[in-house]
Amino acid sequence: MKDMASMIPTFDDVVAAHRRIAPYIHRTPVLTSSYFNELTGAELFFKCENFQKAGAFKVRGACNAVFGLDDDKAKKGVATHSSGNHALSLSYAAGRRGIPCHVVMPRTAPEAKKAAVRGYGGQITECEPSTTSREAVFAEVQERTGAEFVHPYNDLRVIAGQGTCSRELMEQTDGLDAVIAPIGGGGMISGCCLTLSNIAPDVQIYAAEPEQADDACRSLKAGHIIADDAPVTVADGLKVPLKENTWHFVSNYVTDIFTASEQEIIDAMKLTWQRMKIVMEPSCAVPLATILKYPEAFRGKRVGVIITGGNVDLDRLPWMAG
Amino acid sequence: MKDMASMIPTFDDVVAAHRRIAPYIHRTPVLTSSYFNELTGAELFFKCENFQKAGAFKVRGACNAVFGLDDDKAKKGVATHSSGNHALSLSYAAGRRGIPCHVVMPRTAPEAKKAAVRGYGGQITECEPSTTSREAVFAEVQERTGAEFVHPYNDLRVIAGQGTCSRELMEQTDGLDAVIAPIGGGGMISGCCLTLSNIAPDVQIYAAEPEQADDACRSLKAGHIIADDAPVTVADGLKVPLKENTWHFVSNYVTDIFTASEQEIIDAMKLTWQRMKIVMEPSCAVPLATILKYPEAFRGKRVGVIITGGNVDLDRLPWMAG
Repeated sequence: MKDMASMIPTFDDVVAAHRRIAPYIHRTPVLTSSYFNELTGAELFFKCENFQKAGAFKVRGACNAVFGLDDDKAKKGVATHSSGNHALSLSYAAGRRGIPCHVVMPRTAPEAKKAAVRGYGGQITECEPSTTSREAVFAEVQERTGAEFVHPYNDLRVIAGQGTCSRELMEQTDGLDAVIAPIGGGGMISGCCLTLSNIAPDVQIYAAEPEQADDACRSLKAGHIIADDAPVTVADGLKVPLKENTWHFVSNYVTDIFTASEQEIIDAMKLTWQRMKIVMEPSCAVPLATILKYPEAFRGKRVGVIITGGNVDLDRLPWMAG
Repeated sequence: MKDMASMIPTFDDVVAAHRRIAPYIHRTPVLTSSYFNELTGAELFFKCENFQKAGAFKVRGACNAVFGLDDDKAKKGVATHSSGNHALSLSYAAGRRGIPCHVVMPRTAPEAKKAAVRGYGGQITECEPSTTSREAVFAEVQERTGAEFVHPYNDLRVIAGQGTCSRELMEQTDGLDAVIAPIGGGGMISGCCLTLSNIAPDVQIYAAEPEQADDACRSLKAGHIIADDAPVTVADGLKVPLKENTWHFVSNYVTDIFTASEQEIIDAMKLTWQRMKIVMEPSCAVPLATILKYPEAFRGKRVGVIITGGNVDLDRLPWMAG
């Protein structure tokens, strides 16, 4: 086993990832809003990964993992367990390379999510909705197929891929004082840390998290990973805990982690839809919710805000009753 | 009274409008979608006026009218009767010039719409929800204030302003075979006709209309304006009839008008939100609904699609029950 230091990706890995994935991803636009600038007293630059291929930034890391495989490994395909954007993104990436993608999903996952994964070419194997069943079924799938496991975030290829997002953001803006992104498992934030600590070390890196899933915030304060068992939040992309690779970046480079309540997240989400006319996930609203809650941390600054994805169930919007 | 021909705006008026309004409007982006290209067999270029100031293309015409006034006239302000995007846009434009904007709205209009107009600085005078009351109240407001009437679409300054949209679209794309936009009163379509007949006369101009408010389609077939009394459609920006100035352009330059059912409009709207991650009004979905319904008219062509606005009540989306 290699020691940790030798495994940590470098900025060269981000540059290599960017070259590798460029044909398969969008260089997403950066939007501004005079309304939100007035409201917050900051100058905000929204990096719109909701417009990304497969609807989320996760396609960056997934493509880097898939297109970095040598031909022999690639032939056997890739595999993951996820019912979210990583499953879509890995299916998309594998489809572009023409290799299989195996996704283990709970039998109870919404039919729409299964259909979306299949729509991108993913092959679903169902498990029972428990960790034991998921692990057993995933092991069986890997054994049977020999597919390469690509973890949603605790994977160095994935982190290097996510690092391409903040690289574009810096190229698209004329200097920033801070960048803020939502934090779940920490893949996007780790990518920001990796890139910004190299090309813009003065830029402060903030993470934003639901109060009801504030394990990363508590981890940062405690100095070690704290994992919650089953947090409940509308920001369903942010329920997962940090793992050792993302903890390395979060613990070394993140200035602070702010939290917002469920209602603050929903209000910020609705306000963004109303004023910016973009469809984005509840998770993406957490950064803006915290900027509105702690304006003194951002006032007068040029702040990059990463809108991480746009895959929303339009029949179940969080501000609708029922 | 001047004769009609001498009053029709020319492309020089569009160029002058563009210069006049440039500081107050966005040059909105043109988005593409590989998903919709595959689905339709056409190459679609979506001109996103939902990202426009005040949330709709109408701000182009409103700004041209407001900033074209001489100082003496401007001092007395502008006035209109509208409960839709024109009221917001005229309020925004007047606010930027620092002059009053008087809006006559039915007492029964949704509180959210009144709040939005006031949010942009418009001064509302309420009338009863009848044409008689509206005309009487509007006459009283004009008499009292001396404000300049700016009609939502049957106004040559407004038409010249809307013509700037298709001018940008042509600059932003590498040639088009056709442009399609929704048609209500015909302001946007007239602007397209004015501009394209001058700078790109080979581009076919199509309009799209709800089946349940198909007065423009019937007018084109009949060769004269047909006005419906009170059409009912989810595309609430498209209920108004053509008037003489817009009829001039529609009757001379529009190749065809396609219609779509309510369900087709709602489906196309929802699909656009899902796949393009943009918030747009039901009216904007009518063009895509007709492209999906009549693919043979568009297959293999490069088609500009004008997304006219994004001011939607997020609490009452048309695909939600109730």
